[in-house]
Amino acid sequence: MNMNALWTIRSDKFVNEKESIMRNGNVYQVANGYMGYRGTLDEFGADELVGITLSGIFDRVGDAWREPVNAPNGGFTQVTLDGYEISALTTPVKKHSQWLSIENAVFSRETEYESQGKTLTIQSTRFLSTDTPNLGIIKFSLTCDKNARIKIRTGIDFNIWDLNGPHLINVKAEKEKDTLVLHAVTNENAKKIAVAEIIDLSFGKETHEIKERKNLRVIELDAESGKTYTFNKYFAVFTDNDPVTVSVMDSAINCVKRAKDRGYEACLKEHNAQWATKWETCDVKIDGDDEAQLALRYSIFQLLIVAPVRGTGNSIPARALSGQVYKGAIFWDTEMFMFPFFLYTYPEKAVELMRYRIKTLDGARRKAQTEGAGFRGAFYAWESQETGDDACTYFNIGDPHTGRNLRTHFRDKQVHISGDVAIAMWEYFKITGDDLLLLEGGAEVILECARFYYSYAYFKKDKNRYEILDVIGPDEYHERVNNNAFTNMVVKATFEIAMAVIGYLKHNHPAELDALIMKIDIAEELPCFAEAAELLYIPQPDKETGVIEQFDAYFKLKEATIEELKAQKIHPDEYMGAGQGLAVPTKIIKQADVVTMLNVFRDRYSTEIKKANWEYYEPRTEHGSSLSACGYAMVAAEFGNLDFAYRYFMKTASIDVEAKYKVYVGTIFMGGSHPAANGGAWMTAVFGFGGVKADENKVTIQPRLYKKWNALQFTLFYKGDRFAIKITQKAVEIIANAANKRRHTFIVAGKSIDCSPGSTYTIN
Amino acid sequence: MNMNALWTIRSDKFVNEKESIMRNGNVYQVANGYMGYRGTLDEFGADELVGITLSGIFDRVGDAWREPVNAPNGGFTQVTLDGYEISALTTPVKKHSQWLSIENAVFSRETEYESQGKTLTIQSTRFLSTDTPNLGIIKFSLTCDKNARIKIRTGIDFNIWDLNGPHLINVKAEKEKDTLVLHAVTNENAKKIAVAEIIDLSFGKETHEIKERKNLRVIELDAESGKTYTFNKYFAVFTDNDPVTVSVMDSAINCVKRAKDRGYEACLKEHNAQWATKWETCDVKIDGDDEAQLALRYSIFQLLIVAPVRGTGNSIPARALSGQVYKGAIFWDTEMFMFPFFLYTYPEKAVELMRYRIKTLDGARRKAQTEGAGFRGAFYAWESQETGDDACTYFNIGDPHTGRNLRTHFRDKQVHISGDVAIAMWEYFKITGDDLLLLEGGAEVILECARFYYSYAYFKKDKNRYEILDVIGPDEYHERVNNNAFTNMVVKATFEIAMAVIGYLKHNHPAELDALIMKIDIAEELPCFAEAAELLYIPQPDKETGVIEQFDAYFKLKEATIEELKAQKIHPDEYMGAGQGLAVPTKIIKQADVVTMLNVFRDRYSTEIKKANWEYYEPRTEHGSSLSACGYAMVAAEFGNLDFAYRYFMKTASIDVEAKYKVYVGTIFMGGSHPAANGGAWMTAVFGFGGVKADENKVTIQPRLYKKWNALQFTLFYKGDRFAIKITQKAVEIIANAANKRRHTFIVAGKSIDCSPGSTYTIN
Repeated sequence: MNMNALWTIRSDKFVNEKESIMRNGNVYQVANGYMGYRGTLDEFGADELVGITLSGIFDRVGDAWREPVNAPNGGFTQVTLDGYEISALTTPVKKHSQWLSIENAVFSRETEYESQGKTLTIQSTRFLSTDTPNLGIIKFSLTCDKNARIKIRTGIDFNIWDLNGPHLINVKAEKEKDTLVLHAVTNENAKKIAVAEIIDLSFGKETHEIKERKNLRVIELDAESGKTYTFNKYFAVFTDNDPVTVSVMDSAINCVKRAKDRGYEACLKEHNAQWATKWETCDVKIDGDDEAQLALRYSIFQLLIVAPVRGTGNSIPARALSGQVYKGAIFWDTEMFMFPFFLYTYPEKAVELMRYRIKTLDGARRKAQTEGAGFRGAFYAWESQETGDDACTYFNIGDPHTGRNLRTHFRDKQVHISGDVAIAMWEYFKITGDDLLLLEGGAEVILECARFYYSYAYFKKDKNRYEILDVIGPDEYHERVNNNAFTNMVVKATFEIAMAVIGYLKHNHPAELDALIMKIDIAEELPCFAEAAELLYIPQPDKETGVIEQFDAYFKLKEATIEELKAQKIHPDEYMGAGQGLAVPTKIIKQADVVTMLNVFRDRYSTEIKKANWEYYEPRTEHGSSLSACGYAMVAAEFGNLDFAYRYFMKTASIDVEAKYKVYVGTIFMGGSHPAANGGAWMTAVFGFGGVKADENKVTIQPRLYKKWNALQFTLFYKGDRFAIKITQKAVEIIANAANKRRHTFIVAGKSIDCSPGSTYTIN
Repeated sequence: MNMNALWTIRSDKFVNEKESIMRNGNVYQVANGYMGYRGTLDEFGADELVGITLSGIFDRVGDAWREPVNAPNGGFTQVTLDGYEISALTTPVKKHSQWLSIENAVFSRETEYESQGKTLTIQSTRFLSTDTPNLGIIKFSLTCDKNARIKIRTGIDFNIWDLNGPHLINVKAEKEKDTLVLHAVTNENAKKIAVAEIIDLSFGKETHEIKERKNLRVIELDAESGKTYTFNKYFAVFTDNDPVTVSVMDSAINCVKRAKDRGYEACLKEHNAQWATKWETCDVKIDGDDEAQLALRYSIFQLLIVAPVRGTGNSIPARALSGQVYKGAIFWDTEMFMFPFFLYTYPEKAVELMRYRIKTLDGARRKAQTEGAGFRGAFYAWESQETGDDACTYFNIGDPHTGRNLRTHFRDKQVHISGDVAIAMWEYFKITGDDLLLLEGGAEVILECARFYYSYAYFKKDKNRYEILDVIGPDEYHERVNNNAFTNMVVKATFEIAMAVIGYLKHNHPAELDALIMKIDIAEELPCFAEAAELLYIPQPDKETGVIEQFDAYFKLKEATIEELKAQKIHPDEYMGAGQGLAVPTKIIKQADVVTMLNVFRDRYSTEIKKANWEYYEPRTEHGSSLSACGYAMVAAEFGNLDFAYRYFMKTASIDVEAKYKVYVGTIFMGGSHPAANGGAWMTAVFGFGGVKADENKVTIQPRLYKKWNALQFTLFYKGDRFAIKITQKAVEIIANAANKRRHTFIVAGKSIDCSPGSTYTIN
């Protein structure tokens, strides 16, 4: 196990407080794209927020929020010493360490308990297999310093922590030969789910018990002093979502049996091999700044553990797999903040994210038809689950003054989501050069998004322009605004992309294009898209100041400081938006909005304009969203305020490892990990400090390395080929992988370089 | 004095409670268009809401609401008996009567007090002169049943009741020879105001005192048992708004001196003569239903007392002159609910109301330029004061949960106000036939309103139609809706009227038209108005049900009952709109909306459609505005539900005489009179039950007399000529005044009658 401090998160104490247990559950979680396992101790249960959150399977109970299903915990183990239950919650802890290897996503703990004058040491190591995503494996050991009567209860805990459960009904728990099994169905759609658990036991006497919603083996032994007793535990989760050929139950049983047959070490070895491959292309090395290195690497780790399993067409929720917060839903976070990381380092995951949007296109069509007075095209869900129907409620934030939920317009007015999807789809094509995705639904997604926007747009005859009215931009404190600069740019880009995809397909896949146009009956609308792209109003920089007005009449809002607003709060959890919030009449914004636009469309604005807007908006930004800081950091890097850029880079990169984030919005619990910030950290490092920018023709590198850093190293995938980049204070080194298929143009500090396969280029 | 029960409001007890005193202050008020004097007793002060509210003069203190100025009370008189202050608030009242003659707007009170074993009777009679609007006159008498030492303090009380005062500063009170005088200026614009008071005293010994913000005569006398001591009191108020040739102070002094010289009886006689003239054309007689008769007559009385003084260009505020509530502002209430009464019975007041909108056109232009991202044309103030700038605040309703004010969109989104003005302006021309108003600014108002709407409208290209987005219709619970049926119809009508006014002027006043077009530089826009009139989207009746959707997606809102919503209230004063209110997500509406449209545009919809919409919307209407019931009553009358129509007619007509209205919206005090409901009562009688409908070519009468009523009699002015109409259960009688200038077409029950001057027509 790699105990290198730059690859390990470690804590050497146990704080017996709910808050600490909750935050550690996020920090120490492991995941494998199929499921996430919160970083809780073996003996913990629902009260400690133990959770095995599954990707892509959702359920609803009554009128409560629809959310992902948490699986029964096949990793449960609890020990009794001389008749006394041992638990970090109730037993004196002499020593405790826990550590997470981010090299291979393995979580370990070692705890010395004191009870009845004896010292019991429990060790365990846990990972969710990367090569077999249904599988989790735990090595569990115990040692007592004196002879003792030990009872181990281990098995499947189906007393599940749910925010809005219980999601599993008709639960059947039993023991089938050597295997503990559990079968249940989801409440809403009767999706089957099965969990199996098996162990390799070489000591004690085992019996079976089902008690307190736990399906357990009870292992009794007389432990000898100083002797370590170890067993390995294999558990698997299968659902109807898995492409199984036998029943989910049999699949789970087969899976754990096969794993047990192969054994712990063999399984771990394969797991590690896959992790090594991941890091080979995904790591970013910062030489000279260990703190930044660890934070950034942990951020990348967070993205890697939740990247969807190949072929599932799943995506990454806003709180990843750290629990059911935010309904396990996929937001624009994925396309705008996480997707670039995958696109440039791990394109086989990027394509999965895009396939998710293709899979949910019908849901987006349904949403368009049913929102407001009805629209055409694809209006993607603000909070998207497996079908693409919107999980976002119209009343989405609790009001502490009345106990009611506030009407927010996240769902119906945050229309930029469709364009965010279209932009990512097109970026995928531009950067990978792979048009298969377009043919397999990507082009259809883009055209339906453009169609939605045309259906949403209004024409202002006396100004001869299209406008986009009544929206929420990224700054959610100001709802229902007109001509939000970011949104309008996203819409314009979508129309342009629609034109571009038509142009591309016309030349390269005319038959497929014809079929698509026929299929979605869109021929007549295409000229409208061209006109709208041309005549859409885009708020322009003020001639004097260069500042772009965030939306119509934003400049007329009241000046205020964030401190003033906070001082006016009557209740600490009161939300500052939703029409009547304290920020609404003021210029205070929740998060980067114009500045997000300057990043997403960074080619279209000069450095001067970026600086002017950054300076105007930064003091007015609460950064009340974890998506905010990275945008300001990237723009600051671009115009040369590297100290600020670094500070906000660190803020972004450290969010999950430090876990000091707020856990309530209004009265709603929202604790969990922040994959969008994780992606923002990567973007700030590579796009911000690295100065990387790419389009369909070239990769540009305009480095702006932070003074503390000796070198910044990362990998880029571009058009299917791979490059290792090393930026120092003096030079940029590009190593084109020997396996690359063709030459590519790099522009480094203004110099054009034609990078041939297998060659190394150093530019001073 | 007319003590006829159908001409008198009377109460024979005094209830010593704040609430009762406040409501009686409204019920018993007298006014003369220049000022209103609340129905309080002579000895009352600011705590009892004594108020002399002036028309057309406004002031603001700090950030508080701008509101009309209350004048110092020149009518104050208070008596001391043997050293004990006598007041209905503190002295035992043996007997008390007060009555208001609605024949001539004279308020009287008679009170027997018991103090020191003696009975003191105080009588007073008060009126505000109709022929001399600056003048108020009070006859005050006292009688003691035993000899007593009496001290009378009478004069000018300048301890003024203000909601958001004090508005008068630099107050100078003194006695100048026989006259008490007071001079002050308003806080905001230093407008001068003067009050003078004089009495004709024939007993006692008078000294002068200024004490507790009162400028007083102190009259001491030894009253003989059983002897009545009477004096008359004349007070006058002048401000910079008056067209005075000498100072306001001298004007006030001259005014009271002249009045005193003429004497009480002479002044009252002239006052009465003017009142007789008013009633001659304005009264509506209901034979067979005294209750309805009194309520309707009282409603008409309320309108007559507040009708603006000729030549002032003032209008009627939503709470008339009963105080400073609603900022003394003029709303759409005036054009849509009060104006028809004046138009058909008292056109010289109707023209004054219209001149007010011409006078405030520049304010409407300023509002258009400054609201939102800025518009062209005239966006009339939602709450209009003397300049036409909007007195409506963006935060207009108190939230009892937080103590903050709620953001409402009354000011910026209730755009129908401009069209309401344009429609009234055009109605004035159509019904009076008088085009002078058009030439003197009316046409300009209409064109600027159309210009505003064109600037506000958006074109939906894929639907080939204009839409009116983001508005509030009459139903204020649903803010920021799209394509509100009422609003869209008002906008369409405004475009049509703009075309019509252009057409009319082109034929009749081409030079004036050219000058106007040049002046406001509108030539290029005129074709747009025609196009917009044609292509504006108007929500149509559903093909199956006939119901017109109130606004886009209204039908998707939640069903609820008013009782359900009220039961959910946490605080009784909580407002049900403003974005987060309980009614917002539901179909519950505050007041008639579609039904208001069906009334205003009653020619354009069939009876079946009216019935269908009435049946759909009535159970969903809270009638939370006093403007609501009359609309439902009129539509019900039209399709034959006369019982309902009668019930809602009575509800509307009784509102001010019964004074049972709610006095808080949110946490804001809004007690006062309801001139819009008063106008609604008249409309329901004449348009609803009388079935009167007129356009530029004819007057139609399609009577639907309520079963209880033997006859309904009223006067109509039409094209400058006058008609007395009598409707019985069997016949309609039309008497064309002998002084009429020409013949007019009446259509009665489908029959066309050519009414010649001086003739009487009876149609069975």
